[in-house]
Amino acid sequence: MTESKEPTTRTAEGGRRVLIVSAHPDPRSLTASLTGFAADELRAAGHEVEISDLYAMKWRAVTDADDYPEHPAGARLDVAAASQHAYENGSLTADVRAEQERLLRADAVILQFPLWWFSVPAILKGWLDRVLSGGFAYGDGVPQYRDGLLSGRRLLLSVTHGATASALGARGAHGPLTDLLFPLQHGVFFFTGMSVLETFAVADTANLEEEGYRAATTAYRERLAGLFTEEPLPYRRLSDEEYTRTMELKSGRERPGTTGFALHLA
Amino acid sequence: MTESKEPTTRTAEGGRRVLIVSAHPDPRSLTASLTGFAADELRAAGHEVEISDLYAMKWRAVTDADDYPEHPAGARLDVAAASQHAYENGSLTADVRAEQERLLRADAVILQFPLWWFSVPAILKGWLDRVLSGGFAYGDGVPQYRDGLLSGRRLLLSVTHGATASALGARGAHGPLTDLLFPLQHGVFFFTGMSVLETFAVADTANLEEEGYRAATTAYRERLAGLFTEEPLPYRRLSDEEYTRTMELKSGRERPGTTGFALHLA
Repeated sequence: MTESKEPTTRTAEGGRRVLIVSAHPDPRSLTASLTGFAADELRAAGHEVEISDLYAMKWRAVTDADDYPEHPAGARLDVAAASQHAYENGSLTADVRAEQERLLRADAVILQFPLWWFSVPAILKGWLDRVLSGGFAYGDGVPQYRDGLLSGRRLLLSVTHGATASALGARGAHGPLTDLLFPLQHGVFFFTGMSVLETFAVADTANLEEEGYRAATTAYRERLAGLFTEEPLPYRRLSDEEYTRTMELKSGRERPGTTGFALHLA
Repeated sequence: MTESKEPTTRTAEGGRRVLIVSAHPDPRSLTASLTGFAADELRAAGHEVEISDLYAMKWRAVTDADDYPEHPAGARLDVAAASQHAYENGSLTADVRAEQERLLRADAVILQFPLWWFSVPAILKGWLDRVLSGGFAYGDGVPQYRDGLLSGRRLLLSVTHGATASALGARGAHGPLTDLLFPLQHGVFFFTGMSVLETFAVADTANLEEEGYRAATTAYRERLAGLFTEEPLPYRRLSDEEYTRTMELKSGRERPGTTGFALHLA
C-alpha cells in the first residue's frame, strides 16, 4: 500500500481526539503493541490520543457499593438506580468520572483487547460496567439506540484471538465473530448512540510471527486511516417508524428471511 | 402446578451435586434471593448444593501474572500457555484450584446473575477467565465442543434483566436473549463438553413486585425439577463428520436457509 508521509497532509486530515482503551496484563503483549502502533499512527496523522491502559491503571473491575459513596449503607443496592443517582449528583468515584470525561472528550474510541472466552477480559467488562453508568449511558430518560450523550462518536473494536479466521467465520464452529461481538457492538455501544465500525481482528495469534505482525499492522493502518471516514455498521435507530412500543421490529421492515441480530441492520 | 412434597420421593430423585455460582453485590438482591431459592429447592429434592457467592468470597476478577506464581518474572505473559502450564503443574492459585474442584465435583452448575450490558457482571467474567484455565477447559490437547473434563455435567444460566421479555425476544431491539448468551452457552460451556440447558430468565425486574417474584419462583421451580432430565440444547459436537479441518460446518449439513449461530444446532 502507498501512504502519504507528509505531515501537512496528515495535520489537515487530523485534529480529532481518540481514546484507546487497552486491556492486557503484559506491556510486551500483542495487545500492547497494537495499542502503541495505533497511537503512533493516529498521532502521526495529527490526532490527539489518550490511552486508558486498564492494567497499568490497576482498574477496579468489580462494581459494588463502594462505587456509590453516597448510597445509604442500609439500603438495598440497585446498581442501575444507584449509579444513575450518583451520576446525576456528581458523586461517582473519581476513577469512573475521569473515564466518562475521556469518553466525552473523544471523537473516536478504540477498544484493544484479546478475545477471552469469546468476549472482553474481565477488567474491560468492569470498565464497561462501571464507566457506562446509569444516567450517563442507560437508565431513566436516557435514549436507547439513538441520540445519547455519546452520539456522534465512533467506536472500533480491535481484537486479537487465538482461533483461526475460518473458525470464527460465517460457518465457523465458534459462530461468526461479528455475531459474538453483537452484544458489545450493538448492545453496548450502538445503544449509547455511538457510530460503530466493523471490528478489526487479528487471528491465529499463537502462530503470528514477525511476518504476520507486519501484515496485521498494515491492515490495521488502513482501518485507522478510515477511522473518521468509514461507513459505520447500518444498525437501525430505535424509532417509532421501525419499532413497536414493545421494542420489537415492526413486521415487514426486514429483508425476507432475515432473523435474529440481522433484523437490526437496515 | 402440583408438586410432590414427600421427602422419600425427593431423596429417590436426588443425590446429585449442584454448584451455584452467584454474582450480585447485595445479599438482599433478586439474584441472591433466587440463589437461596434454588439451593432450598434442590436440597429439599435431596441434592447437595455448593454456592460460590463471588462477592461474598471477594473473588478476584482480574487475570494477571499473580495467577501464575511459577511464571518467570521476566518472561512475556501468554495467558493461555501460562495457565495451562500452571494447571498441569498444580501451581494455579488456591482460589482457582478450589473452584475447579467444585466444578469437577458437580453434576450440574447454575450461574445466577443479573444481565449487565447484555453479558455477565465483570466479577463473573473474571471467574470464567480464571477458573476455566488452559489445560482444564481449553488449550493444547483439550477437546473442543465434545468430551472434555467437564463432560456430562449440566449447565443452566439463570439470569435476571431489566428489559422486557419482548425487547429480548425474537424481534426485540436488543436481539434475542438466546443469541446474546450464545458466547456463554456455546462458546464457554458447550465448548468444555457440558450439556447446556435453555436459559431461565426473569424479565422486567424493576417492576417485579411480590406477585412477579412468586410467578418467577414458580417457573424456576419447574426448571430446577428438570435440571437432570430436561433435554439439553442440541448443539453439534465438533466431529469430522460434521465439520471440516478448518472448523467450518460442512456444506449441506444444515436446514436450508440457516445461518450464523443456528448452524451449530443439529
